[in-house]
Amino acid sequence: MTLAVRYTSARTLDTAPAVDVPPGPGEVELAPAYVGICGTDLHIFHGDMDARVAAPAVLGHEMSGRIVRVGAGVEGWAPGDAVTVMPLRWDDTCPACRAGHQHVCQHLDFIGIDSPGAMQQRWTVPAATLIRLPGSLPLDRAALVEPTAVAVHDVGRARVVSGEKVVVVGGGPVGILIALVARAAGAEVRVVELSAHRRLLAGELGLTAWDPAADDIGALVAAWTQDAGADVAFEVSGAAGGVDTAVDVLGVRGRLCLVAIHPRPREVNLHRFFWRELTLVGARLYDRSDFEYAVALVADGTIPADRLISKVVPLTQAPAAFEALEGGGDVMKILVDCTDTLEGATA
Amino acid sequence: MTLAVRYTSARTLDTAPAVDVPPGPGEVELAPAYVGICGTDLHIFHGDMDARVAAPAVLGHEMSGRIVRVGAGVEGWAPGDAVTVMPLRWDDTCPACRAGHQHVCQHLDFIGIDSPGAMQQRWTVPAATLIRLPGSLPLDRAALVEPTAVAVHDVGRARVVSGEKVVVVGGGPVGILIALVARAAGAEVRVVELSAHRRLLAGELGLTAWDPAADDIGALVAAWTQDAGADVAFEVSGAAGGVDTAVDVLGVRGRLCLVAIHPRPREVNLHRFFWRELTLVGARLYDRSDFEYAVALVADGTIPADRLISKVVPLTQAPAAFEALEGGGDVMKILVDCTDTLEGATA
Ligand SMILES: NC(=O)c1ccc[n+]([C@@H]2O[C@H](COP(=O)([O-])OP(=O)(O)OC[C@H]3O[C@@H](n4cnc5c(N)ncnc54)[C@H](O)[C@@H]3O)[C@@H](O)[C@H]2O)c1
Ligand SMILES: NC(=O)c1ccc[n+]([C@@H]2O[C@H](COP(=O)([O-])OP(=O)(O)OC[C@H]3O[C@@H](n4cnc5c(N)ncnc54)[C@H](O)[C@@H]3O)[C@@H](O)[C@H]2O)c1
Ligand SMILES: [Zn+2]
Ligand SMILES: [Zn+2]
Repeated sequence: MTLAVRYTSARTLDTAPAVDVPPGPGEVELAPAYVGICGTDLHIFHGDMDARVAAPAVLGHEMSGRIVRVGAGVEGWAPGDAVTVMPLRWDDTCPACRAGHQHVCQHLDFIGIDSPGAMQQRWTVPAATLIRLPGSLPLDRAALVEPTAVAVHDVGRARVVSGEKVVVVGGGPVGILIALVARAAGAEVRVVELSAHRRLLAGELGLTAWDPAADDIGALVAAWTQDAGADVAFEVSGAAGGVDTAVDVLGVRGRLCLVAIHPRPREVNLHRFFWRELTLVGARLYDRSDFEYAVALVADGTIPADRLISKVVPLTQAPAAFEALEGGGDVMKILVDCTDTLEGATA
Repeated sequence: MTLAVRYTSARTLDTAPAVDVPPGPGEVELAPAYVGICGTDLHIFHGDMDARVAAPAVLGHEMSGRIVRVGAGVEGWAPGDAVTVMPLRWDDTCPACRAGHQHVCQHLDFIGIDSPGAMQQRWTVPAATLIRLPGSLPLDRAALVEPTAVAVHDVGRARVVSGEKVVVVGGGPVGILIALVARAAGAEVRVVELSAHRRLLAGELGLTAWDPAADDIGALVAAWTQDAGADVAFEVSGAAGGVDTAVDVLGVRGRLCLVAIHPRPREVNLHRFFWRELTLVGARLYDRSDFEYAVALVADGTIPADRLISKVVPLTQAPAAFEALEGGGDVMKILVDCTDTLEGATA
């Protein structure tokens, strides 16, 4: 028997037998190895996304694993292949798709939110979602490819080029990955982050991190940029104060890349957008090229994925891990290990 | 004796003898012919800009006129030449200037706000600010070149290309000029404007105008764009509701060009920026190429400047015109005629 982690109702997860879905034509069945818990999973756990998520729902979309079976007509893939999944299904007919922006399809199926996710021991997905992993890449690290693809997409949306000065507001997993990808693109990067633990980790990765509660960010940016202001800011905090910081640090023609999800409207200093001719650019998800570049960055160590993994828990302890993460605390990324033999659970 | 219109204190203008400034090296003395009254002039009149404007202050920056005298070292210009003025002086040393964005110089002198403006019968400015007018262009129409340069800059910032669907929110002088420039670039344009009079004028210019208080803008945009949403929106209303409209009408990857001045922060639906990967781009003023293109558009009738001029008043009646404009009413652009012989005033 295989198991799945399921969201059943607000603040309640359980583990239950996974529903076995034999791969249909064009599909593959995977054995997920590691699945990261992300902020969206926590939002679902809180019950904030009940309008969108049909409980009981299997969560998880940051994953690595191996192919178990391939369905009819699937070519180029074989059992045993190490893969990650770009968890998107689009309709190819809406205006967004027709304009070539399938990743923001107006009827997007985000697998792991809108349909069953990866936090289970067998998972059937379209072969079109597969991304090959190099054999040399440990599967735990490979679970960081999905959030790295987010970061690659964001740095691309902001058109960061070598030598630019970049401020990342919010040093959670996504913010740190953006900082690392921007640095790899040749940018000089500063991270603004409230949590001392996360600033410390940023420092260990060679990133200078500032504390918005204690440091005078305006003065630090002015000194760093000789009064010009930063070229690019990323808003990755999701906080109202983070939006203000990201706007304030930018110089003339600066670009603000909006990555965080702000469920409610935020007050924005539009006068400064006019006065300094700033640009705000929204960024959502990724496309295949972002994913493939993310694989390369994780595989070659540009993204030190091992340093970002705070903890790995067996699948049966995923519910407890969600509760622990809720409390905040000194963690970055927690992975759920789906390869666990689960003796306790299946006894 | 020559006269000037001066702002002396909140809600008070007078006319007084102009201070004669002989043109120094690199300067020219002009005889302004027509000077438009713009929203910023009204803000100054209201007393809202007292922190920036040193009273008594001569207003006016939308002008046409002729050269009277040229200072030492001025080449290529001669008395009698018809000109308009790009009313900007920059320091060439700040980070904005060094990056090539002189028009948003961090120490910009906007002539007519930060230093004496054109609403007078003699006006001395740097020769570097002059823009040549074709002899065939009547000087009253030429007073519309400055706001047209704003519109040219904005359409450029939004990168409008032929065939795109563009919504202009706010059909005041600047909004209508943007609509006309975007249409000249090949865009399909809709104007959203509260005032029935201004919608009527838009209609006479061949622009379809919608009423946000009565029409269902969302439904109209959906029908017009086959549910895709608009490619570009311009926020030219300065109103909170205008910001919402401009965000709401945009399709995936839509661009919102922010032209209006919003003195206070506005609530912005950032979730939609993320979800649809929208872009917001601030636009301020213009550069020389915008001005030169604006001259061509006004000269060849693409901008039917005569249709936008609601009224021309003699210089001595400028104070009364400001008071009338304050009340709103059915006007678009009012020009002050500085060529008036002013017998009454000088008697
Ligand atoms: N655009 C996308 O496609 C996409 C993809 C994944 C995640 N996200 C969003 O990105 C955001 C970040 O994700 P995450 O997993 O890193 O979240 P997270 O909550 O772990 O990280 C946010 C960080 O911001 C810090 N913070 C809060 N307020 C701050 C402030 N005023 N100044 C500076 N730092 C502040 C917090 O301490 C925290 O470390 C979330 O909103 C998430 O929903 C977007
Ligand atoms: N970016 C720049 O460099 C620059 C240059 C000149 C002017 N401006 C600014 O551009 C704006 C427009 O200038 P203008 O002279 O045309 O001003 P205006 O006040 O004459 O025009 C604004 C129009 O918006 C309409 N309006 C108000 N609320 C609306 C709503 N919710 N929906 C639709 N329409 C609405 C009004 O009826 C009015 O006709 C002003 O904010 C001005 O300060 C900016
Ligand atoms: Zn689609
Ligand atoms: Zn400058």
